[in-house]
Amino acid sequence: MAQFPQSYTLVISSPDQVGLVAAVSSFVAAHGGSLLESNNHTDLSERWFFMRNVIDVRNLDIDLDGFADEFGRLAQGFDMKWYLRDNQCKRRVVVFASHASHCIADILHRWHSGDLDCDIPCVISNHENLRSMVEWHGIPFHYVPVAKDDKDAAFAEMEDIVGRHRGETIVLARYMQIIPPRLCAQYAGQLINIHHSFLPSFIGANPYQKAHDRGVKLIGATCHYVTEDLDEGPIIEQDVVRVSHASSKDDLVRLGRDVERSVLSRGLRYHLEDRVIVRGNKTVVFNP
Amino acid sequence: MAQFPQSYTLVISSPDQVGLVAAVSSFVAAHGGSLLESNNHTDLSERWFFMRNVIDVRNLDIDLDGFADEFGRLAQGFDMKWYLRDNQCKRRVVVFASHASHCIADILHRWHSGDLDCDIPCVISNHENLRSMVEWHGIPFHYVPVAKDDKDAAFAEMEDIVGRHRGETIVLARYMQIIPPRLCAQYAGQLINIHHSFLPSFIGANPYQKAHDRGVKLIGATCHYVTEDLDEGPIIEQDVVRVSHASSKDDLVRLGRDVERSVLSRGLRYHLEDRVIVRGNKTVVFNP
Amino acid sequence: MAQFPQSYTLVISSPDQVGLVAAVSSFVAAHGGSLLESNNHTDLSERWFFMRNVIDVRNLDIDLDGFADEFGRLAQGFDMKWYLRDNQCKRRVVVFASHASHCIADILHRWHSGDLDCDIPCVISNHENLRSMVEWHGIPFHYVPVAKDDKDAAFAEMEDIVGRHRGETIVLARYMQIIPPRLCAQYAGQLINIHHSFLPSFIGANPYQKAHDRGVKLIGATCHYVTEDLDEGPIIEQDVVRVSHASSKDDLVRLGRDVERSVLSRGLRYHLEDRVIVRGNKTVVFNP
Amino acid sequence: MAQFPQSYTLVISSPDQVGLVAAVSSFVAAHGGSLLESNNHTDLSERWFFMRNVIDVRNLDIDLDGFADEFGRLAQGFDMKWYLRDNQCKRRVVVFASHASHCIADILHRWHSGDLDCDIPCVISNHENLRSMVEWHGIPFHYVPVAKDDKDAAFAEMEDIVGRHRGETIVLARYMQIIPPRLCAQYAGQLINIHHSFLPSFIGANPYQKAHDRGVKLIGATCHYVTEDLDEGPIIEQDVVRVSHASSKDDLVRLGRDVERSVLSRGLRYHLEDRVIVRGNKTVVFNP
Repeated sequence: MAQFPQSYTLVISSPDQVGLVAAVSSFVAAHGGSLLESNNHTDLSERWFFMRNVIDVRNLDIDLDGFADEFGRLAQGFDMKWYLRDNQCKRRVVVFASHASHCIADILHRWHSGDLDCDIPCVISNHENLRSMVEWHGIPFHYVPVAKDDKDAAFAEMEDIVGRHRGETIVLARYMQIIPPRLCAQYAGQLINIHHSFLPSFIGANPYQKAHDRGVKLIGATCHYVTEDLDEGPIIEQDVVRVSHASSKDDLVRLGRDVERSVLSRGLRYHLEDRVIVRGNKTVVFNP
Repeated sequence: MAQFPQSYTLVISSPDQVGLVAAVSSFVAAHGGSLLESNNHTDLSERWFFMRNVIDVRNLDIDLDGFADEFGRLAQGFDMKWYLRDNQCKRRVVVFASHASHCIADILHRWHSGDLDCDIPCVISNHENLRSMVEWHGIPFHYVPVAKDDKDAAFAEMEDIVGRHRGETIVLARYMQIIPPRLCAQYAGQLINIHHSFLPSFIGANPYQKAHDRGVKLIGATCHYVTEDLDEGPIIEQDVVRVSHASSKDDLVRLGRDVERSVLSRGLRYHLEDRVIVRGNKTVVFNP
Repeated sequence: MAQFPQSYTLVISSPDQVGLVAAVSSFVAAHGGSLLESNNHTDLSERWFFMRNVIDVRNLDIDLDGFADEFGRLAQGFDMKWYLRDNQCKRRVVVFASHASHCIADILHRWHSGDLDCDIPCVISNHENLRSMVEWHGIPFHYVPVAKDDKDAAFAEMEDIVGRHRGETIVLARYMQIIPPRLCAQYAGQLINIHHSFLPSFIGANPYQKAHDRGVKLIGATCHYVTEDLDEGPIIEQDVVRVSHASSKDDLVRLGRDVERSVLSRGLRYHLEDRVIVRGNKTVVFNP
Repeated sequence: MAQFPQSYTLVISSPDQVGLVAAVSSFVAAHGGSLLESNNHTDLSERWFFMRNVIDVRNLDIDLDGFADEFGRLAQGFDMKWYLRDNQCKRRVVVFASHASHCIADILHRWHSGDLDCDIPCVISNHENLRSMVEWHGIPFHYVPVAKDDKDAAFAEMEDIVGRHRGETIVLARYMQIIPPRLCAQYAGQLINIHHSFLPSFIGANPYQKAHDRGVKLIGATCHYVTEDLDEGPIIEQDVVRVSHASSKDDLVRLGRDVERSVLSRGLRYHLEDRVIVRGNKTVVFNP
């Protein structure tokens, strides 16, 4: 993270057992690492342990590879799933957009003003209308139309573009196409969507129309990882906004845009700061 | 309303047409009535008009019956559904409770401290545990157990009790039994439930367990009028509270209790102040 | 408003008296006008009346000038302050910006995507850094540096620019200079500021530092009309966001940016839709 | 905590240094303790460290006194301030109330329904009106009027009553008297107040009147520890609720009551679960 330039983030999940925090924190301290942030959570019903450490590495007696090697041996003993990230390396985030501009404009502005700590190597869209806005930010724009009768070709091309740009995370900024299972699997835990309803309410298409028809008094948005099951992936963040009988369906759409972009930007931030750990269909989010 | 002791509330819904506000407000002014509050809403897609007026009647040149008679003639011309209420007459609210105390304790405290403008002629419950609390408030408590194999008898008895107490509105304060269609129909628009989820999420039983299983980041509650279709009635009020991965299912239940009681008390207040107009499966709520 | 292309908005405040709503709504109906939206409020402690009507004028038997003339005579009898606006004429909003981009980027994006119903004839800033962003939107950018020892000259130039562009409303989008009293008076009720605290908390400079020092658990932002008294003008809109001990002062600044821009955009929308009526140091806001 | 019957809570604050988490967690693990919850925070600007551990003690090889003795030696080396609590021992909370019932009714109901994990050995009030409500809960009620010209005698009596009931924490549930410095000092960090404004807005008397006069769009409440400086103590929790031009001062009072009681009950819960650590005039709150 930009906030802590010389730091690693170490993220762990494992079966719970006595001594986990002690083992990890002793390891870090023994190598001269200092904990800038440390969060952990024990899911007592599932006996599962989650941990996130941001480690000041200015006095570390070991380099990234050395740390990873040694920690890997410790991790094995505890049956940990873990990863280590050097916070000097920014994540590479490819944005998929469609016609709507509100989410991508927000992401690009945050990135441009230094508020979002990532690289955006390119934007891919099935419409041309956002090209000028994206290119103004100095970001390559790829137009990949999705023909109804040959979606496979389009997604193969998109996958290729992401690959060439070494994209690690894909953000669906109101990209309205269903992502094929192959791509979901390949970018599991790295493919982030914003759904325009408070899931599990109004799953599927036209949630604002459904919300209007039902007469709800709050509408919402949900940021989640994409899995094969549409709108069923692990939820990262949600929020709502109050509406009333006086809100037309168009008002819901308008008010919803604000919730969508703020929920997406928060969810993306949590992801980029390695605050989200997926287990099963749920997330642990060590949000500050 | 206690706030305006010498006032009437006049509530109208009708097909929209030019001159409605003029006709109603001219009628009121012509009889010396002064508008303390006046709200109206036109549903432009359905061309339907809704209006609520609180009228200062201290200088009215006509009494309640006279007002109703004359206004009835005007209303006919506009095809209005309407009602008129003398705000000196408090609504009689019967509370149905089960084992859980949080909603009913809140209602009774608000009533006792003068914060809720109604009479509560009695409480009916299928458990005995709340008797002492209810009776401390000076309110009769009726224990009506609901036998699994003879629910009809229980509901017949409850209906009888409500009738004897001249109950106008029934509040289901976490009363966990399904209300028979006959009672729903008889108290249509006067039967208020609090559902422990943000509808339409998690319809039916055990919403907190379902919310926990889905890993949502907000939980909510919904106050709605009861119709034959379970959890499908017109929504009066909703709200949510933030939860996290660290919230156990028991935490959701605990946090949910606070949302339930505040949503129910707001919904009930709107109802008692004649702020809610039902049309179809939706409500207009002129909340302040 | 774009939503109602052939409509007028009529905004009124006056001493309260019997028959006001009747007189206004009868006038509208008599000329064939239909009420699309109608809000009113009586301040019972001050005996003051506020009203806003959006009138469908497709069947009006009179034009704008005729309406204004006739209504003016009616208004005189009730001692009304009032104005009438043809919603086909968009308000001309000049934005003053400084170095920070978040508020102005938000306003420009909303305007560009058709979400904000106004014209933006130009942007004026005392820094050059936002020129490219503004010009990408096709909006003229005027750089007017404010020399510490000759602020008068700068503000005279700015006033001249606003005049040439026929600006009606001025938005201070985190413009950090104190506006001279002459300009405050000239654009009274048309000069909108976003203050980066929940007023009246942390009046003046460095509110985030003060909030951090005090250890508050929520921070906020306030959109208000500018008057001669710094941070004391009538409040249009406010909101807050939760923070914690883990939030550094920089985190407050970052989280605050999101509240600032959403509060400003809501406040500006209310202003543009003629939903705000100022009386003394307070506002009536007929927000939907 | 009731949730974890056989557990200790260990709360620490100390100068930050490498190896703190390792030292504490290793100590716990070495004695067979398992971490049920563990939170820590490093204030990087002040280089200060805060930690809270809930420890499962079912397999601990040492008793409470032994744990405290041994940990005390470790703590000395790190210059820690710390305390250890056996969660089987409930805190003894004395409530001071005045005439208003909403906060105390809420606390008593939560306690009565098992939702608030403490003992309430008595209630002290300077009015008699709440006696019956308190006694219905089986809690002794002490009436201690506060004469304007001899407040010292009243507070001496109250101090005596608290002492006889072995009160550890005092909650001012809208107790409207200023607490003398001696009592503030004696119960430092254990004396909790609910202030009826969003501090630091509207410090002192009549905050709702001030809020109404200023025309704010949100009102709030603040739960804080009481220090000698009125309304200036460390803030535990705050929240707000939306109001409008249509809200009279009485409406603010009514809406404010709901925020007051929910903020107080959350703040008290955090205190009782040892989630709050005071440092200087600020708090760390490890809320879940």
